[in-house]
Amino acid sequence: MKELKERILREGKNLGGGILKVDGFINHQVDPQLMDDCGREFARRFRGLGATKVLTAEISGIGPALMTALHLKLPVVYARKHKPITMPDQVFLTLSPSHTKGRTVELIISPEYLAGGERVLVIDDFLASGATILGLVRLANTAGAKIVGIGALIEKSFEGGRAALAHLGIPVESLACVKSMEGDRIEFCD
Amino acid sequence: MKELKERILREGKNLGGGILKVDGFINHQVDPQLMDDCGREFARRFRGLGATKVLTAEISGIGPALMTALHLKLPVVYARKHKPITMPDQVFLTLSPSHTKGRTVELIISPEYLAGGERVLVIDDFLASGATILGLVRLANTAGAKIVGIGALIEKSFEGGRAALAHLGIPVESLACVKSMEGDRIEFCD
Repeated sequence: MKELKERILREGKNLGGGILKVDGFINHQVDPQLMDDCGREFARRFRGLGATKVLTAEISGIGPALMTALHLKLPVVYARKHKPITMPDQVFLTLSPSHTKGRTVELIISPEYLAGGERVLVIDDFLASGATILGLVRLANTAGAKIVGIGALIEKSFEGGRAALAHLGIPVESLACVKSMEGDRIEFCD
Repeated sequence: MKELKERILREGKNLGGGILKVDGFINHQVDPQLMDDCGREFARRFRGLGATKVLTAEISGIGPALMTALHLKLPVVYARKHKPITMPDQVFLTLSPSHTKGRTVELIISPEYLAGGERVLVIDDFLASGATILGLVRLANTAGAKIVGIGALIEKSFEGGRAALAHLGIPVESLACVKSMEGDRIEFCD
């Protein structure tokens, strides 16, 4: 998506070590119009899949997932990383390694909001190693739901996430694919 | 706001101890159309304040704040509770007691995204004791920014947040005000 790529080139920063700083428009300060445009684009790409729910992981997946769900007229569920007191004792929980945090995080969903037979579209901000998204896939499988598509705002193709998701045999879409981040450059896949 | 109140009555649950469970449409599963409607309503109420930025706290403030910012055509910043590696070493940080978590949480904003002279509209999901919102006010003051309005989806008037914010002398708006939660009842202020 041209608009997102231009924004990454203009305002994104390559911090080294594969870390792309986009916290001026995606994951600390957020440009709501850009998120809305990205949500509309995901909705266009995934409209034919018959999804019944959008699923993401807190925190920075919430913006793009919410906007995608708005345009698809679907509810969105964000997996929690800490169990709140409003959640029942029996939950779906999986562990997911977080590169950027350097530790394992929990991903928790209440069985109230993910049911057997649901068709789930996963939307997140980044597709890097695919670890978080694979965690969401495990949660959906445990619930008896089926993941039908995966979308990420930004794919870092050099971290191998797309290959890690290939066995699922479902559409994987990213709106900006970063091929390499050598020195202070940011190079897109196409 | 009639739509939100009806939804609370229909799907909200009084868990006792002042805890209102609304995780089926606000803070775990989210109804994006409802969030959009709430954002539009906040935008209508606060449009005259000349805000330059919307501010909230992760996690469940993100939805309503993002939608409000969309309708006001403003950027939104969410205060982080853990400092990510993309954030500079020098940050605005304050501590805020969290009732529902039973501990103190950090609220952190990068100085890159909150500047002196900004006019800040705070939007959050709940106004209970006001502690989180007062934390955001302290961060804004430290940055030299001015809070010009405060909006919450749901106010629990029996927790005294409105009184705690009164000294600010700015508009405080909630879209649903809960007066009491005796037994399993939920009673609105008006």
